[in-house]
Amino acid sequence: MPERANTCAIAGMSDVWEYYRGELDAVEDQIRQNLDSKVALVNTVCAHILSSGGKRIRPLLLILSARTAGYTGRDDVLLASLIEYIHTATLLHDDVVDHADLRRGRKTANGLWGNQVAILAGDYLYCQAICRIVGFRNQDVNECLSEACRKMAEGELMQLSYKDDTSISEREYLKIVEHKTGSLMAAACRMGAVAADADPAQRDALFAFGQAIGVAFQVADDALDYAAPREVLGKSLGKDLGEGQVTLPLLHLRKHCTDDERARLAEVMAKKHSGNGDLAWVVSLMERYGSIDHAMDTARRIVQAAKVHLDPFEDSLHKRALHVVADYMVSRNH
Amino acid sequence: MPERANTCAIAGMSDVWEYYRGELDAVEDQIRQNLDSKVALVNTVCAHILSSGGKRIRPLLLILSARTAGYTGRDDVLLASLIEYIHTATLLHDDVVDHADLRRGRKTANGLWGNQVAILAGDYLYCQAICRIVGFRNQDVNECLSEACRKMAEGELMQLSYKDDTSISEREYLKIVEHKTGSLMAAACRMGAVAADADPAQRDALFAFGQAIGVAFQVADDALDYAAPREVLGKSLGKDLGEGQVTLPLLHLRKHCTDDERARLAEVMAKKHSGNGDLAWVVSLMERYGSIDHAMDTARRIVQAAKVHLDPFEDSLHKRALHVVADYMVSRNH
Repeated sequence: MPERANTCAIAGMSDVWEYYRGELDAVEDQIRQNLDSKVALVNTVCAHILSSGGKRIRPLLLILSARTAGYTGRDDVLLASLIEYIHTATLLHDDVVDHADLRRGRKTANGLWGNQVAILAGDYLYCQAICRIVGFRNQDVNECLSEACRKMAEGELMQLSYKDDTSISEREYLKIVEHKTGSLMAAACRMGAVAADADPAQRDALFAFGQAIGVAFQVADDALDYAAPREVLGKSLGKDLGEGQVTLPLLHLRKHCTDDERARLAEVMAKKHSGNGDLAWVVSLMERYGSIDHAMDTARRIVQAAKVHLDPFEDSLHKRALHVVADYMVSRNH
Repeated sequence: MPERANTCAIAGMSDVWEYYRGELDAVEDQIRQNLDSKVALVNTVCAHILSSGGKRIRPLLLILSARTAGYTGRDDVLLASLIEYIHTATLLHDDVVDHADLRRGRKTANGLWGNQVAILAGDYLYCQAICRIVGFRNQDVNECLSEACRKMAEGELMQLSYKDDTSISEREYLKIVEHKTGSLMAAACRMGAVAADADPAQRDALFAFGQAIGVAFQVADDALDYAAPREVLGKSLGKDLGEGQVTLPLLHLRKHCTDDERARLAEVMAKKHSGNGDLAWVVSLMERYGSIDHAMDTARRIVQAAKVHLDPFEDSLHKRALHVVADYMVSRNH
């Protein structure tokens, strides 16, 4: 990798992508190298999903955390590639669960090869990651990653069990979000700290940072489901409403609207397929009551609190980059 | 547990179930205790599938292997419950993959709660098992179990990639069987050896024994798909033919039949839904050429070879029980 001036300023996310391009390219190489199954179909399916344009946020978080904690070696690249395997395994299963045909504009694995192949390829990626992880012979890494995987599955099941349940509380909603999105980002950051052989307090701090920005990311993502123009997020608006998922803007709206509005809201939620008219009505109500702004403010507050966990670390370009990534998580084009 | 006469004879499988009832009951207790998710749906779904009448062959193999290698402690019960979790996770995903509505006469999890819940509950069971396993802090156990999981997923994908492919060789068929069924039984036996702190040669021997009887079990199961009356196996006959899965009896038949028969066989295989008439014709041809007998003989030969791996172990009631289980794997009512 070419030498880089340590004084270079990191002002925004494009600087981060630019500055860590060498590390992220090494992660891509590693992702390809890990796909060494003797079964051609395994490699084909996994390569398809792994190359479908993910932003590699979790690998980036792992690498930045390791560097912030003083790491200068190269083990973080392999760990980073494995955390992306786990994330990709969950995407494969999510797309089957959601009957999704497209992901980032490309056909999904289930769309191309069927549910059977997608489920099993997800299982394979999980297991391949765990196989490589145990090769590190590090108890903290083993525990942290297996726990994150368990929490993600629990979080998705929690969400399913609250489907169509409008009585869910904000606390329960945040618990789901922490499980399904916070846990793997927390693990990514902690694994970086472990690679750096950081002390327990630093490991816990980076874990807490990762968990908080993961929660913030999901809260913002859920808010933008009611706000983002289609082309920004590359997915359809109002997906959660259609699927009966109750998220923060809806919780806020339900609390602040009139009784009549609340009654009509319950009717819309009870429909299996709410139309565009319903969605437009819900969004206009949310705008009137400031529900989307409230959710985005909540996400931003979580990010500000997350940054406090980084205070004990020495100032560095890497720590600065973590701050930038944290802000990026709640921006409209994350 | 009540004391048992060590001189009691173990002649058949019913003696084994009887003699190890205490240990197997402890495994059942442990299986229930591990289901400690705070998410009610997780526990409900997992309890349903875990109590659906599996024979607990893998837990039994683990316990018998541990005892054969001299173990007298109680860690094997927890390990045994976790290997059953992994097995159950694969069943949850298999039932989604196969669109199965019934398993052992009960509704499947996907039938009761839908594919989403079944896929995620499978993920949860995998992860919960791995979480508990890493708690043992034993590198051999970590490697052995994660490797087995990876091989199972690879085996299923290998099988899918050979679907409708009649050019598959016996060698390739046996490789699939080794991956999808041999690997977890091999891991169960090796984990027993690890619990007993057996030496590397003994660990390898029990691994090889488990792998071989796993292969034999699957070869026999595939043969019985063309031979067993419906009520014995509790599943429909000729399932593999209908699904385009080429197994040993078909490989044998294809090799020994006339050119005309081979041509008609290819036609039957090419149909998406072969009728009962086709199946009856295939079975009668297999009977004429001895294809089912050949497959059962192959399974029995593999079992005999498997037993040789136990020779280095001191004779004991536990070792005798392993021999009995090995024979049971290729019996018609396994």
